[in-house]
Amino acid sequence: MRTNIPARVAALREAMNERKIDAYIIPSSDPHLSEYPADRWKAREWISGFNGSAGTVVVTAHKAGLWTDSRYFLQATAQLEGTGIELYKMALPGTPSIPEFLAHELHNGQTVGLDGQTYSAADAKALRTALERKGIHLDTSSDLIDALWNDRPAVPANPIFELPEELAGASVHEKLDQINNLLHSEGADGLVLAALDEIAWTFNIRGTDVAYNPVAVCYAFVSEEESVLFIHPEKLTGEIAEHLKKEGVALADYSMIDKYLSRLAENQRIFVDPNKTSISLYDAIPGSCSLIEGLTPANRLKSVKNATEIKGFQKAVVKDGVALAKFYYWLEKQMAEGAPVTEISAAEKLTALRAEQPLYIMDSFATICGYAEHGAIVHYAATPESDATLRPEGLLLIDSGAQYLDGTTDITRTIALGEPTEQMKKDFTRVLKGTISLAKCKFPAGTRGSQLDILARKALWDAGINYLHGTGHGIGHCLNVHEGPQSIRMEENPTTLKPGMVTSDEPGLYRAGEYGIRTENMILTREDSETEFGKFLSFDTLTLCYIDTRLVIVPMLSAREHAWLNKYHQRVYDAISPYLNEEEKAWLKAKTAEI
Amino acid sequence: MRTNIPARVAALREAMNERKIDAYIIPSSDPHLSEYPADRWKAREWISGFNGSAGTVVVTAHKAGLWTDSRYFLQATAQLEGTGIELYKMALPGTPSIPEFLAHELHNGQTVGLDGQTYSAADAKALRTALERKGIHLDTSSDLIDALWNDRPAVPANPIFELPEELAGASVHEKLDQINNLLHSEGADGLVLAALDEIAWTFNIRGTDVAYNPVAVCYAFVSEEESVLFIHPEKLTGEIAEHLKKEGVALADYSMIDKYLSRLAENQRIFVDPNKTSISLYDAIPGSCSLIEGLTPANRLKSVKNATEIKGFQKAVVKDGVALAKFYYWLEKQMAEGAPVTEISAAEKLTALRAEQPLYIMDSFATICGYAEHGAIVHYAATPESDATLRPEGLLLIDSGAQYLDGTTDITRTIALGEPTEQMKKDFTRVLKGTISLAKCKFPAGTRGSQLDILARKALWDAGINYLHGTGHGIGHCLNVHEGPQSIRMEENPTTLKPGMVTSDEPGLYRAGEYGIRTENMILTREDSETEFGKFLSFDTLTLCYIDTRLVIVPMLSAREHAWLNKYHQRVYDAISPYLNEEEKAWLKAKTAEI
Repeated sequence: MRTNIPARVAALREAMNERKIDAYIIPSSDPHLSEYPADRWKAREWISGFNGSAGTVVVTAHKAGLWTDSRYFLQATAQLEGTGIELYKMALPGTPSIPEFLAHELHNGQTVGLDGQTYSAADAKALRTALERKGIHLDTSSDLIDALWNDRPAVPANPIFELPEELAGASVHEKLDQINNLLHSEGADGLVLAALDEIAWTFNIRGTDVAYNPVAVCYAFVSEEESVLFIHPEKLTGEIAEHLKKEGVALADYSMIDKYLSRLAENQRIFVDPNKTSISLYDAIPGSCSLIEGLTPANRLKSVKNATEIKGFQKAVVKDGVALAKFYYWLEKQMAEGAPVTEISAAEKLTALRAEQPLYIMDSFATICGYAEHGAIVHYAATPESDATLRPEGLLLIDSGAQYLDGTTDITRTIALGEPTEQMKKDFTRVLKGTISLAKCKFPAGTRGSQLDILARKALWDAGINYLHGTGHGIGHCLNVHEGPQSIRMEENPTTLKPGMVTSDEPGLYRAGEYGIRTENMILTREDSETEFGKFLSFDTLTLCYIDTRLVIVPMLSAREHAWLNKYHQRVYDAISPYLNEEEKAWLKAKTAEI
Repeated sequence: MRTNIPARVAALREAMNERKIDAYIIPSSDPHLSEYPADRWKAREWISGFNGSAGTVVVTAHKAGLWTDSRYFLQATAQLEGTGIELYKMALPGTPSIPEFLAHELHNGQTVGLDGQTYSAADAKALRTALERKGIHLDTSSDLIDALWNDRPAVPANPIFELPEELAGASVHEKLDQINNLLHSEGADGLVLAALDEIAWTFNIRGTDVAYNPVAVCYAFVSEEESVLFIHPEKLTGEIAEHLKKEGVALADYSMIDKYLSRLAENQRIFVDPNKTSISLYDAIPGSCSLIEGLTPANRLKSVKNATEIKGFQKAVVKDGVALAKFYYWLEKQMAEGAPVTEISAAEKLTALRAEQPLYIMDSFATICGYAEHGAIVHYAATPESDATLRPEGLLLIDSGAQYLDGTTDITRTIALGEPTEQMKKDFTRVLKGTISLAKCKFPAGTRGSQLDILARKALWDAGINYLHGTGHGIGHCLNVHEGPQSIRMEENPTTLKPGMVTSDEPGLYRAGEYGIRTENMILTREDSETEFGKFLSFDTLTLCYIDTRLVIVPMLSAREHAWLNKYHQRVYDAISPYLNEEEKAWLKAKTAEI
């Protein structure tokens, strides 16, 4: 525990008292509802000391609580100790939701406050509706933390860089035209963009303001009349500013977005995604404008990769495959020599090998390197305390990826460090059947990911096994490794899979206290064929890395799965071996040998 | 065409003029939003002459149109000829929806009318919202047809009968308790029931007011304080009335429901399903009451069959299987002897054989008997004009079912009348793989039908084939052969599959102008197993009828599918043969022989 937490909570209560706010909510978002906020917006961590990626703090006059999910129960318990902040374990029976808690603690006429800049319009409206039933008011205008947080980091002002048109596949001007066409077809006059990856895609810019996502903090407004990028001027070189202007982009300061929106002409029809826009920004749009809500045109266009972006992905997976081959070769040698390797040192080695590849920018997320029972913790992050030394036995799960200028990668492999047990092999083969079954399916245009999800799970379900995470998420092009709008999961998502979308294919199996298995490839949706029954689509597997065949029980594979695996391994060898030295080449030849 | 249609439309226009209604909508529903309305409510047929099951007429001062879907384009074209009513082909590009048509034809301040008794609250509210955007008013209070329709049939007053508790598995009193428990847990004080099958289930009554669905026209209200059945007194014997009263049911006339609802005490919380309740009835609930909307407790309870109902289904499928075996034996003999059989005479023979079975009430829908290219018309109904004579070649698809007091059946089989082609066999085997794959799957509790749908389609999709109907619908217990709330289809449906639900499993393949193939069984959801990963469910196949193995290409089946088919045939023979004569028995032995 940080010893100053109780003092911070006390100071917040004083501020609440002054402002006549009876409960205050501190979420973990930034004004762009990012998955990874910059340090400036880690207010929830500042007030509670809890630094997990998901969690919300609520403070009332006499109570303080942190709501987080099962991934973080242990970590939160430890980090909250002595703070006076109670842990509310989400999704457990008996745990009240935040609105339920507020409805219980507060009474008619009282007020809940939050900083509307860091709370999505959709969530704020839902919360307001829930609280209004009890006569409780929601005030989204108050950032009470700002005045208390003396050494609060500034809004990041790292320089941005342009993604060259030869890597982006379309100029800014062309993208703005595409967006305006979609706006026009939906009857909208203008578009508010707050999601950093949507802006980065639209304006062909990238940045380093947050971890893992190569985005820059900014806002944008797009319309036929003018397109404005709201960004701190320090972030731009004169050259970039000049180029953006040539592409038809006006520039304004980051802080001007609210004022700009408030001056929109009457009766304008403004397109906005209430899940990707803060309630403050949403409320800045004049009431005289009508709103069209949904997934923004930028979001939808971004998800369908163009030919250049696809070529970039195809280059990126070769580079990634080379780094992975070199890594697994190195690891096997280290283990054979008895040299010490830990989860953290292995992950660092992998990052170093990726960094040697051309156009590497950064990792696309924090590597999950889970040895033995750590592999069963789905979002495991090794700490110096937990960092396990690898032994010549058991399974090692590594989920990792990189940002290259020409594409983003995300791959999981599970390998045996010693002689695997029968159960490990059975489990591994069941998971592999799922990865392959999804990768090689064919489906009518108009199919949603939730319809295909079972293909990745069926071999597991047949054995009474399931995994509780999604099977696939969208992957950005030199952008966020988790992007929408498509997904492949048990839960319904109305977005259909379209040719050009890049999605992960990652079934898993987790035996708590024993091991975790996940085999993840990136798959590209493509046109397959057209018959009298309509258009059919299928997937190309992009990722190029061997699958540990020591863990495969061949008779459990169908003939088609077996053929797929051998063909895949041939592809991996052909694509990767030219970049390896002779020793590595021989090693990869063995790893990808026909079985 | 009926020659009096133009006069009817003219009379309607006069009535519209008097009431200052500028457009009038005549849908095909009854006050209970039934799939099959009684003759009294066939107003759309009366005004247009079109007697398909789906269609809506809209009349304005100068235009009249019928909106229907592709199943009925040919029939509607023929039946509308000379009426002055134009056909609007739904779902074709360029066809306006009814709201679009109205927005185009009418202007700000004008009024659209309809009989709110035959229009669901959900649809009426959506229509009202769409029209209000254009400043057009919706008046749901006017049944303009009633005054014009001189020989309009009366509200059906056929006698009802009780489903004995030993077949229903629960007394009325017990069911009312179950409903009240659910109402209580959702914070509701009372429940409005308008759907005839929900009322029939709740009060253990059945009737013959409409075709195929053994229901009676009535309404009901359920609460802890009192439960009232609103029904025409002529429909009840003194004995039934007495028994219902003993079970705690108050009786009132059918016409009293509106008045009853209008007198509900203030601040009551009333549960209502806006999709199963007319806007008139919905609006009869006082504004001082609050509404809780959703699938009614009766609907949800009804869909999960109790042990007695399940036993009833198991008996019904044996009886149905006996009738089907005798039928297919008869058909084969007729064909061998060269005796003339047509689609209609075959269907009549099948009905006659079912009628010989104990507890048979009626067929559960109009038999679809489609020979050769007629099999490719998914909702084919043979008419004297289309009635094809069966020849010793090609495929015959028969989709049929019956209402027995102990259960409802729905089965489709496709058989070869001569030597099938390779394409027929391939297609048949692909469909069969789908039927089996769904039937033998295992899935976690909480799974929705849309997640499983692909299992029935995958072998077809792999070959670039698809069918555009659902894979499975719920089936009532001595009730509607199509019931909710669960389904297995490509479209999302949030209802999860629960142990005790009975659903159809009916993939198909339709080659226009050639043949149709469908293999349909009823499947019962049941508990399968519990592992460290949670509870798993699976299906029992209920239907007992041989599958034409002359159409099966065994090497196309997986080992598990092959084993399933042989095991299923053994089950069919064991269950059905005791009820057959020696000749039939020998025939069935051959039909179910191991392959």
